[in-house]
Formats: sequence, C-alpha cells, structure tokens
Amino acid sequence: MSARMSVRYRLQCSADAIDARARALAVEQSIEMPIEAVRDERVRAQIVGEVVTIEPSAQRDDRFDVVLALAVETTGDEPGQMLNVVFGNCSLQPDVELIDLELPAAALAKLPGPRFGIAGWRAATSPSGASPAPYRPLSCTALKPQGLDAWALAELAYVLARAGIDVVKDDHGIADQACAPFAQRVPLVQRAIERANREKRDASGSLAGHRSIYAPTLSGGPRRLAAQLAIARAEGVGALLCCPMIIGVPTFAELVRAEAGVPLLAHPAFAGHLRIEPPLLLGRLFRLFGADATIFPNWGGRFGNTRAECLAIADRARAPLGAHRPALPVPAGGLRIERIDEIVRAYGTDTMLLIGGDLLRAGDALAERAARFALQVASAASVDDEAVAVHDERTSDG
Amino acid sequence: MSARMSVRYRLQCSADAIDARARALAVEQSIEMPIEAVRDERVRAQIVGEVVTIEPSAQRDDRFDVVLALAVETTGDEPGQMLNVVFGNCSLQPDVELIDLELPAAALAKLPGPRFGIAGWRAATSPSGASPAPYRPLSCTALKPQGLDAWALAELAYVLARAGIDVVKDDHGIADQACAPFAQRVPLVQRAIERANREKRDASGSLAGHRSIYAPTLSGGPRRLAAQLAIARAEGVGALLCCPMIIGVPTFAELVRAEAGVPLLAHPAFAGHLRIEPPLLLGRLFRLFGADATIFPNWGGRFGNTRAECLAIADRARAPLGAHRPALPVPAGGLRIERIDEIVRAYGTDTMLLIGGDLLRAGDALAERAARFALQVASAASVDDEAVAVHDERTSDG
Repeated sequence: MSARMSVRYRLQCSADAIDARARALAVEQSIEMPIEAVRDERVRAQIVGEVVTIEPSAQRDDRFDVVLALAVETTGDEPGQMLNVVFGNCSLQPDVELIDLELPAAALAKLPGPRFGIAGWRAATSPSGASPAPYRPLSCTALKPQGLDAWALAELAYVLARAGIDVVKDDHGIADQACAPFAQRVPLVQRAIERANREKRDASGSLAGHRSIYAPTLSGGPRRLAAQLAIARAEGVGALLCCPMIIGVPTFAELVRAEAGVPLLAHPAFAGHLRIEPPLLLGRLFRLFGADATIFPNWGGRFGNTRAECLAIADRARAPLGAHRPALPVPAGGLRIERIDEIVRAYGTDTMLLIGGDLLRAGDALAERAARFALQVASAASVDDEAVAVHDERTSDG
Repeated sequence: MSARMSVRYRLQCSADAIDARARALAVEQSIEMPIEAVRDERVRAQIVGEVVTIEPSAQRDDRFDVVLALAVETTGDEPGQMLNVVFGNCSLQPDVELIDLELPAAALAKLPGPRFGIAGWRAATSPSGASPAPYRPLSCTALKPQGLDAWALAELAYVLARAGIDVVKDDHGIADQACAPFAQRVPLVQRAIERANREKRDASGSLAGHRSIYAPTLSGGPRRLAAQLAIARAEGVGALLCCPMIIGVPTFAELVRAEAGVPLLAHPAFAGHLRIEPPLLLGRLFRLFGADATIFPNWGGRFGNTRAECLAIADRARAPLGAHRPALPVPAGGLRIERIDEIVRAYGTDTMLLIGGDLLRAGDALAERAARFALQVASAASVDDEAVAVHDERTSDG
C-alpha cells in the first residue's frame, strides 16, 4: 500500500448512517467521484481514501470519531495542497470537524518546520554577548492601537523596550496602512528599539545588557511581501509577525519562511478554528509550515479556548515531531499581568507571554507596568529552572 | 467622520448582554485594546469601530444581527488586510458569524474585481470566429480522479472536449503531484483539447466550430505559482482554476489575478470552516478579489447549502457592484445531468454548470453522456434567451 497519513475527523451523524457517511468522506477527500467509475487499478488501490476506524465520540451520541487513511502522494508534499486534501471540500460540509493529523516520517520530513525554533527566540533576545541564552520565559507585547502614526508607534516601542520586554511586535491589525506605512514605520520603530537596547547595554541592575527585538507585521501578496522582507532585512529587525491563514499557507511556507532570516511569529487571525481543532492548526500545522512561535488565545480572556485546549496547543507546538524544531507557544488575548505566575506554572519556561492592552491601560504608568511585566516574566523562571531544557538543545542551523 | 464600511455580524448572545457584546466586537475589530487607554484623538474619532444597529435575528431568540461601522483606512485597500479587519480576531470567537459587508464606492473601486467577467467566459469559449459570443449557459466538467497520469488525463480531456463541453478543468485535488506534475500535464491536456477543437472546427452539426478551453489548477507558493503561470501562458490555456482560501487571498488578488491573462475560476475548498455567509465569501468577496467565476455547492448535492443560499451566491456574483464586472456563478457538487433544466431555470443563462462524477459514472458511455450534458446546457438557453444580457454589455478591457 502507498504511504498514508492518518486523519481524524469528528462527524455529526446517526449510528445507522455513520458507516456510509465515513466512506463518503473518504471518497470526498481523495478521488471525489463514484468509486465504481474508477477504472484505474493503481488509483483504486493507492489513491482512494480508506476508513480505518469509526468510534463513538465521548462527547455526544450523534458524534463519531472517524480516522481515514489518505494517500500522502496526493499532497504533493506542498503545505497548501495538504490542507486541501485533509479539509478542502469537507470544510464545506457542516457535519465535519478536523480533529487530528498524523504524517509518516518521510512526509513529515518534507515539510519546512520552524527554521529557528525556541532556541532561536532565546538567542535573538539574549543579553548582549550572553551565550548560551538564559533559560527563562519570554515577554512579548504589541504596539497599538492601529491608527497611530509611525512616530507615535516608535515612541511607544522605545518605552516598552526600555522597560525590558523581550519581543515588541506590531499589533496584528497594523499592516501597511497609510497612517503608518511599513516602509516608514519599520525603520523608525527599529531605531527606537535599538536606542533602548543601547541604553540598557550601559545600564546597571536587572536590565543591564537586556536586548529587545521588534517583530513587524508582514502582509499582502508576494510582491508586497518581498518588498517588506527587504526592508526588514535592511533594517535588521529581530523577528517577523504574520497571519498564515490570511497571507495563505503556501506563501507563508514557501516565501516568508524561506526569506525571513529571523524567527517567525504566527498570529491566528482568520483561523476561524471552530471546526479545526486548535491544537492541530495553531500547534502542529503552523509549526510544520514554518512558525517559530505561535500566538493563541489563552483561557479566561476574550476568546473561548479552554485551559485543556490551550495546554494542548502548547504541547503540540513543543512536542517531538520528526526532526522539526519546537515552536514557542505564545498565550495571549486579554491576559493581565496579575496572571503571570499562574500562566508560567501552567505552560512552563518554554513560553512567551503576550500582553498588550493590559499594559496600555496603565496610561502614564505604562513604563512602570511594562517593567513589572518584563521582570515578573523573566523571574518566573525560578518556578521550574531546574527543568531540563531538552528542546533547547537542538541547534539552530536552519 | 472617516470613510467607514458597514459589516454585519450575527452574534449568539442574551438580550441583556448584547449591547456590551456588540461594543466589545467593535473594539476587537478595530483598536483591540481598552478604549479608555486610547489617548490619540484621531484614533478615538476615526479608528475605533462603532456599533450602528443591533436587531434581534429572525432566526432565534439568542441571536442578534449587529452592524458595525469600521474604518476603511484600516484595511489599507489590501484584500487580505480587509479580511483581517472584518473577521481576523473574531473568527476565533465562536459566538460570531460574518454575514455581510458593504464598502463605500471609493473602497470598492480599489479592489481588483474580475478582469474578464462573464463576457470574458463567453468570449473565451465562443465558436471559432463567432462574435459576439452566443448568449447561453456554459458547461464545465472536471478531469478526475487524481492519481491518473498525465496521459490518461489528457485522453479524458480529449473525450470531454470532443463531446462539446465548454470548460474542462482539473479536479481541484489535481495540483502538482508526482503522478501528473503540472509541467507535464498541462501541455499534454492542452494539446488534447486543441486536437478536439480542430476536429470540431471541421465538423458539421451542433458541434461545428465549438471551442473548449482547459482550466488547470494553480497551487503552491509564489515561486511555484509563477512557474505554473509561465507554463500556462506558454501553452495557451484558456482559463485557470485555484482555491483562494488555500493559496491565500492576497496572493490570489495580487499575483494570480494580475498575471493569469485568462479568466479565473475560484474553487471554494477550505472556505467552509470560517462561519462566513457563503453569498458574501463565495459571491461578493471572491469576485472583488478577482475571480471571473465562482464554484459553489448546489443544493441537493453532497453539501449543505440551501436553494436560497445558492441563489444568493449567484446574485452576489452577478449583481451591480461599483464598476466591477460580474462573475459567473458555477453551481457544482454532485449535480446530475437530469437536473440541468431545473438548474438553468433557477439561475438563468449567465451560469456555468459543473458536472464531474455524474459523467464519469457512465463508463463506456462517457462520450455520449458528456455530449448530452453539453448539448442540453447549451440549448437550455431557450428558457430565457430573450432576457437582456445587461451584464454582458460590460467590456472586457481589464
């Protein structure tokens, strides 16, 4: 039999119809035509999808977990076509959810995966000259609101970097709009970050030598992306942010991942993941497509994920996966700094906490609250600083 | 006030909480931070999203239709960023559906729209030398199953084109896999189509001068797409197929639409998981992003759309929309040729019917069944051939 991937779906279906429904799904996601009309023996044996198991779901009587074996060759080893095979047509069928995907080792090895991984984030944000980078959680915040001009964003970036936050990213809504165009904003913000870094290099105390990096938002089609990538490289930005589900997974995997040259932070905007399990899409798939870090809504914020789902996303981002580097989980979405200890305890040290609005809420006390955030995240390392950083031992030679 | 677009959402919410929920959505989709922390007056006045109306949904007690006014400038006039503004973060909130989007004229004019439109499809498929092209519905079929080699697909294409089908497209699952790579398949299939066209040019009867065109599937990242576009142009294919939600809307709008040089057929694969109303996404938005035709699952097939939804998709594809050309609606998804008259009566003449599996089901009688399909679609024009083809009067100078 040809190499197959194992794809788990959850179907809403009555017990007496599930066998036929599962077979129909296997056809839909492979040959998409009546089996009896397939005359080619190779296609019948190697391409037609197969139903492996059908199990009642633990959740509800009218739900079944169906595992299909789909031919790896139908993906052409291309990330977009892989999405097409596992959830192209059946995304249009409201009774189907995509739960999980397991690829054989050879197929796994052909997907790009993170180029820098968690170790890459630590290296990029390590204090001037520090090697190896300290083993601690990382802090991240967002420049916002959109609508500010580039100078205002740069001034904000300076304050946040000076306060010791590791990664200062654009809000994902800040793209390439007229009020702060990429070509104007990125040099101004990057220089503001560098100014803060110079001051910290000469500082004493807990911020001595601390290094912040800037992650601007990439957006648009290939030409626009290429122009933005050139600016980002020329200015020496330390990381990049983009939304794979908006720019498109093939463009993310082929163009952005290949040409970024710095760690990539994936944002879940437009991931609409009600019907694709978040741990699969935001944890495993974004990582396989090349994300070095993956942002996701934490429990207890403005989004609906449960604690278990969030921890599963983090697990998928970091767990062994062929030879691929781990990606850094980045819980976000309405976090408050009062929750830092709880969150670091839950996720462990290989985590970056993203807090935006809750810092800006401080108004005149922004610098102070940002510094408290940065320090509290950095020192939360003590919670498990004896843990063995197994994932960090991977090298960063991508 | 700055130019605003009107975005309609459906929220699942109790009556006593809906005011606050609507305001929270307006913030989520604009500044994404606490309003009270926004100090910039321009941002407060021109960027923060506004709640325009809240109305109980006709559907259920716990559903409300909420219309927001979001600032057009936040989209940067870029299709991907437009999706981000209207459904980026809130796609992750399971209580939100995106129902509709109305853009002011100036914003509408900045989106690409179809380059060829319905008139372009008629011109591309008109009998040798016929001008103007006949006013009739068009027929479309798919080469399948994937897994066949390029020679088998070419032979199938010959049979289908020889039978008089207007558009012979790759199955959307046929991308650039090893068994029939794009660079090998496209020249072979295109030549098979041309051979059929030569024979029809010299034929008598209903097929005299009939011209079929081939629409291969574009897939992958920008480099791969560029290589495929070069092959398609060199071989003179008459149309192209791709899945905007997989290759990514910005890449579709910026690269594919600009460089195709032939009408584009958009496939809805991977579009279904997002909780966006199909008439908006497949009808209006795909058209605004550059699709000349839009495939969608017809009622009564393998997918869940209702008749009303399908007709609404077709309406959105063809209705006046600024200066944009209409896009051709392409109902599909398990159609049988016995339903042709019903479908043409429902959709009218500005329609292309896509039937794949139901032809292949015929086995040895494929050529005969395909010819019946082509002829029946073409002659269904009589149903409303006195209708004024207003949309067709638009020129095709894009």
